[in-house]
Amino acid sequence: MERIDSINNKFIKNISKLEQKKYREKTGTYLIEGFHLVEEALKAKRKYTFILATENALMQAVASLGLDPNDNRIVLISQKIAEHLSATKSPQGIFMVLKISQPKNFSFNYGKWVMLDHLADPGNVGTIIRTADAAGFTGIILSPRSVDLYNSKVQRAMQGSQFHLDLVVGDLYDAVADFKASGIPVYASMLDPRAKELAAFVPAPQVAIIIGNEAHGVEAKLAELADEKLYIPILGRAESLNAAVAAGIMMYHFA
Amino acid sequence: MERIDSINNKFIKNISKLEQKKYREKTGTYLIEGFHLVEEALKAKRKYTFILATENALMQAVASLGLDPNDNRIVLISQKIAEHLSATKSPQGIFMVLKISQPKNFSFNYGKWVMLDHLADPGNVGTIIRTADAAGFTGIILSPRSVDLYNSKVQRAMQGSQFHLDLVVGDLYDAVADFKASGIPVYASMLDPRAKELAAFVPAPQVAIIIGNEAHGVEAKLAELADEKLYIPILGRAESLNAAVAAGIMMYHFA
Repeated sequence: MERIDSINNKFIKNISKLEQKKYREKTGTYLIEGFHLVEEALKAKRKYTFILATENALMQAVASLGLDPNDNRIVLISQKIAEHLSATKSPQGIFMVLKISQPKNFSFNYGKWVMLDHLADPGNVGTIIRTADAAGFTGIILSPRSVDLYNSKVQRAMQGSQFHLDLVVGDLYDAVADFKASGIPVYASMLDPRAKELAAFVPAPQVAIIIGNEAHGVEAKLAELADEKLYIPILGRAESLNAAVAAGIMMYHFA
Repeated sequence: MERIDSINNKFIKNISKLEQKKYREKTGTYLIEGFHLVEEALKAKRKYTFILATENALMQAVASLGLDPNDNRIVLISQKIAEHLSATKSPQGIFMVLKISQPKNFSFNYGKWVMLDHLADPGNVGTIIRTADAAGFTGIILSPRSVDLYNSKVQRAMQGSQFHLDLVVGDLYDAVADFKASGIPVYASMLDPRAKELAAFVPAPQVAIIIGNEAHGVEAKLAELADEKLYIPILGRAESLNAAVAAGIMMYHFA
């Protein structure tokens, strides 16, 4: 088993670069950290190229996650490297480099979906995916202009739900056309009291909800393609709801 | 009108220290930033000791917020100081130092309330308060162990809702006793399928909901005092919902 002690090691430098989207795209890999996410990735049998762990973390992973200590993808790292790679103040000392695998030619013809139109905040995107998992949704479609799914903050906020759902980066116009062709109702979430109140909708076995950008909402042209525009009434004096909270209220309404 | 150009100025150094809770408590003041929050504070006629603004921001505030340019609490600051004081990358150049005013001997005998039991994440607390405002709630009671209400991240996430609601830092046991004495039902939000499903509750004109710490939930002793324990069912494989999303779903259920 290889052991690396220096943060100046070339391999470690390359792992660090996975923080950058362009480097993730170049290598087709991304980084996650912490026991919970690594456990979920192992359970979901996701393809990985490396597991980096401190000695203590490795012992714990072998004992509690059933990690095979002879797995030749394991690289031992020092505590200092763990601190260097981690996005948190108290790293757990375990990291995994996973292969990005985007489904090709996905067809949206069943289930409950959320479409994210140009969502910008990583915490919002991660939280929406976690909530979609809790609400029993099938998957999430992110427009290409949304924050990158493999961003470390998005990965962290998903808390493992990234391994439970279909997560697709794709054109929302194409997805809406697919849903409509399959008879799945498409609803655009609006901040507009002329839209239909959420309470007027009944829970449905299949549904596709579009959530818009935090500042600008759903793109007007895309919203026009929806079967209905819906909104959550603002009863007090707030100007709007947080996008993840609004998405959560809608998903549980249709759950 | 005083004008300050150096970030080493004693007054500016003291304003910077408002980032620390102990200094906010010592001075009985806190700092907010940005046009929207300053506008909401002015509208709500909150007591302030200073407005700090760059020349451009001051012109804009006089034109759009109706700020009196002769207000002797205005201090002109340089762009560099604005960047120094700001918690954001692109500061709008306007700050306000407000007086902390906590209601004394508050009695909880009407309306819709959320109690936050040891909430730790500033974004969650701010988002819950913003959502409570949107859902037409009366106010929020934060346990003293919760993240400080005057923390800049909490203030930012509230997006002005801090000036629309009653925000009280106080003992939750006392508050629960008040609610129960007034006949207002108290519900503890649990992550426990033995609790009663949210859908079994009907919207009520008055209600008090306890939301628990992100990792540990509502303190067991406190939950026992509630009239009912309730939970939002997890239909997929997520372990839990984000606290702010769960609070949002509950508040809109009772709205």
